[in-house]
Amino acid sequence: MKIKNNISEKTELVANWQTLMRVFIRPENEETKLILLKYMEQILFGLNNFLKKHVGITEKVSLKELSMRFTDTTINKNPEKKLAEVITELIEDIAPHAVNVASPYFVGHMTSAMPFFMVHLKTIVTALNQNLVKIETSKVVSILEKQVIAKIHRIIYKEDESFYKEHVQNAKTTLGCFTKDGTLANITALWVARNSLLVPTKDGFSGIEEEGIDAAYKAYGIERCVILASKLSHYSLKKAGGILGIGNQNIIAIDVDGNNRINLDLLNKEIKKIKQTGGRIRILAVVGIAGTTETGTIDPLKEIGMLCSENKIHFHVDAAWGGPTLMSEKYSHLLDGIELADSVTIDCHKQFYMPMSSGMVYFKNPSIMNSIEYHASYVNRPGSVDLGIKSITGSREANSIILDCALKIMGTQGYALLIEHGIETARKFAEEIKKRPDFQLMTSPELNLLTYRICPADIREKLSEDNFEQRQSINKKLNKINRTVQRLQREAGKSFVSRTTLSIGNKHKEDIVVLRCVIMNPMTNINILKKILDEQEEIYRCHIDEV
Amino acid sequence: MKIKNNISEKTELVANWQTLMRVFIRPENEETKLILLKYMEQILFGLNNFLKKHVGITEKVSLKELSMRFTDTTINKNPEKKLAEVITELIEDIAPHAVNVASPYFVGHMTSAMPFFMVHLKTIVTALNQNLVKIETSKVVSILEKQVIAKIHRIIYKEDESFYKEHVQNAKTTLGCFTKDGTLANITALWVARNSLLVPTKDGFSGIEEEGIDAAYKAYGIERCVILASKLSHYSLKKAGGILGIGNQNIIAIDVDGNNRINLDLLNKEIKKIKQTGGRIRILAVVGIAGTTETGTIDPLKEIGMLCSENKIHFHVDAAWGGPTLMSEKYSHLLDGIELADSVTIDCHKQFYMPMSSGMVYFKNPSIMNSIEYHASYVNRPGSVDLGIKSITGSREANSIILDCALKIMGTQGYALLIEHGIETARKFAEEIKKRPDFQLMTSPELNLLTYRICPADIREKLSEDNFEQRQSINKKLNKINRTVQRLQREAGKSFVSRTTLSIGNKHKEDIVVLRCVIMNPMTNINILKKILDEQEEIYRCHIDEV
Repeated sequence: MKIKNNISEKTELVANWQTLMRVFIRPENEETKLILLKYMEQILFGLNNFLKKHVGITEKVSLKELSMRFTDTTINKNPEKKLAEVITELIEDIAPHAVNVASPYFVGHMTSAMPFFMVHLKTIVTALNQNLVKIETSKVVSILEKQVIAKIHRIIYKEDESFYKEHVQNAKTTLGCFTKDGTLANITALWVARNSLLVPTKDGFSGIEEEGIDAAYKAYGIERCVILASKLSHYSLKKAGGILGIGNQNIIAIDVDGNNRINLDLLNKEIKKIKQTGGRIRILAVVGIAGTTETGTIDPLKEIGMLCSENKIHFHVDAAWGGPTLMSEKYSHLLDGIELADSVTIDCHKQFYMPMSSGMVYFKNPSIMNSIEYHASYVNRPGSVDLGIKSITGSREANSIILDCALKIMGTQGYALLIEHGIETARKFAEEIKKRPDFQLMTSPELNLLTYRICPADIREKLSEDNFEQRQSINKKLNKINRTVQRLQREAGKSFVSRTTLSIGNKHKEDIVVLRCVIMNPMTNINILKKILDEQEEIYRCHIDEV
Repeated sequence: MKIKNNISEKTELVANWQTLMRVFIRPENEETKLILLKYMEQILFGLNNFLKKHVGITEKVSLKELSMRFTDTTINKNPEKKLAEVITELIEDIAPHAVNVASPYFVGHMTSAMPFFMVHLKTIVTALNQNLVKIETSKVVSILEKQVIAKIHRIIYKEDESFYKEHVQNAKTTLGCFTKDGTLANITALWVARNSLLVPTKDGFSGIEEEGIDAAYKAYGIERCVILASKLSHYSLKKAGGILGIGNQNIIAIDVDGNNRINLDLLNKEIKKIKQTGGRIRILAVVGIAGTTETGTIDPLKEIGMLCSENKIHFHVDAAWGGPTLMSEKYSHLLDGIELADSVTIDCHKQFYMPMSSGMVYFKNPSIMNSIEYHASYVNRPGSVDLGIKSITGSREANSIILDCALKIMGTQGYALLIEHGIETARKFAEEIKKRPDFQLMTSPELNLLTYRICPADIREKLSEDNFEQRQSINKKLNKINRTVQRLQREAGKSFVSRTTLSIGNKHKEDIVVLRCVIMNPMTNINILKKILDEQEEIYRCHIDEV
């Protein structure tokens, strides 16, 4: 036995049953354990410092150079490295080339710092390894998920106690579903909307899910279905149109008003125009946005909701970003009307500050998800509590545990503080931008998101002149400048502001490149934002030739 | 300052900025840290014992009773509990009612024990919180993901070195994609197949993704599209048919042969029959299964592949379960022909032993995913390395890191040992079942999955008589018995074998309830399986009235 052990220690990098069993159950030796322990302690009890120390610190290596290091496509038959080496390499050699999205200077995307305990919760969820597709691999966790779904439904729809008593643990009804992300939540909502519109008929049509779109259109005498949404809606709506078979060109973009909200007049006109086809064209859904990805603006949900209700149209609200604002007593009014929605998307990995990636979709009508019900004889039997019965995905981890625990730890008020900090810091930042002569505020923050660009005061004056060609030429140059400044700042590796292109103007639309700032990190304050502006100013002055 | 601290300590359960900042960054005090540390050490360095001690130990509480404890649907404004209390409650009060899927006695589903280091890897991935939708929130991780995708592609398709050199880091081509699970991988594959069949035409049709199914059918003069798959195919194919708009009734189930593999004659006939419609009905894809969910059997992939190639049909292989068998030199031949597939689904949380939930889809043609390409001006710009451009989901965590590290730690041989252990233990188990007079082996293990039922020897004799009505009556009783034994064993809380219903027989099909055993845990050995049989025998003898 002794000899055998010695041999297997000398030839550790050969995969055999003994080493396999060891690697399965615990670290192979004390040395490995100490290395793992060191990193796990750093991550679990000093997340912020760990990320500052290890992640995104060698930004200067270009993508191209990096990609040349990752070209070997063979997998070793035997272990390539010992466990401790693999983990060390991941943290010391690979992580430095990842992006420190938790840095307070990373204000470019909807990915941010998390409370440290989120990592603990995810670790526990991973260890439990429950599969929510069925009760047999999750038991209490499916029940807990139904409860947390009812809790969030209640924040959105504020139904009365008896409603939630009836539905919270009702195996036959469903108030919502966890999905991987906002895209799948939107697809789920529109899938349900599609199936609820083109239901079975008395003439023998058995429903769109069963017979398909072509048969449905024939049964209903329809030429096409459309979805109406602001032109600032997320690209996942177009994707949903493509996947669901109605065609992505049938996601009709409605122009926005001066505040980047859907133009209600245009929406109304479009609905009327479609209604005049006498049913040849049908509106599958109207989508309102609570926090557009590019400008953070919120569509007039109440007005859209009423319009949809009058016209009996499925009203979907994409609140992937803005949904958690409902927890702030101060700002929840911004989402007034969301309770009129037939379906609502909210992301957990955005303003619920949960780890990548987790989304949710909610429905006003607890039976509407029946239209996407699927069974199998080994799981998801009719009448069971199996959550996989009504879900776009099959196997699914228990992210609902994380949300439930976080709500208990933070309270709605804890989340409200984070959300209010974002909104109020964005407002301060907007004021700062207005003060600086080199910058132009492009969209004011309604939530915690704003856009601006480099556009010196003298240029702004020229732009105000009524000469479209001159304006166009200047804007082209400005676009180039802003693209360059954004890139150089990113490459410098300290701060990150994203960029996007907005189509701006009334008579003549122009594509304007803007810098986009998302504030969802409690460590990001106005002083940090000022430094980010300072750096942009410096880059602009030192590296950019005149306009 | 001192006074302020004291106050905030006394009123800890009020959410204010100070407590929030503390809860964001580190444990509020040493006591909390010690509690978290205790659990994290147990999980990270004694996963097996942790699960044995904490999870699934109070099985006797009924679902109904449990669900009555989870009915409060309000969320506190202020924190409900301190962090340490929430975590303690999760582990001490909730986890005991979850399911210990890692137990070697849990052999009922495709969810099993994981190597302990998987939890470490997931913890690191969570801490990094990279978002793979775009390079700006992932950088090196997107590059690493492209590499690991090429590695797995190579296991499946075995293209030559120059092929992988060209594509591994090519921003324009895509060898595959990580998805949440097998269902989304199957949907992605069939979405791509749909779009590749109904491409833009010279007459001005701009493709199904843009114009939708109805327009596509008109442009091509099609009445309907169908997908052909064995009747043992996963229910996600039907779901895909529904979502993609072709209608789930158009997923045509082909009967299986005596070995539960798709009946090639019937498949061939069906293809010919459809071809005779002169294009009115089109075959969108034929699906072969490498490891059916219910019996673990593998369709004759080579024959199906050749048939598809002759008839120019997209050939999809659902290898969600069996895919990793390719790493075993001993058994990879079982999947011969998979290299003919146009697309392949493989799950990571199944036989790659990764945490819930992670799937993958691969494509033979590196350009075929272009048919599902989506852009937005703030992310996923054309020509970028943004992986979100061709993906059903948007935001996505870096599960690819886990797979890459696991492959380095285990080698293909490490995985092969796990897979071979499963197959060979299943064979031993089949022998054991055959030896016991009370049991009948229903499907032999081709991979690590078999089905059997309680059916005493004397009854089996009666069943062999040529009297259908008598047989039917006996089987009905047996079905009831097997259902009851399975339930009583599950409720006893020590072992778990799942059950499903197979449709068996040639002339007369009968629904037969079978017990289903999946062996994917290196700790599950024949002695444990014998004990599981012993328990079933005992339940049958003591609790069940005669047949």
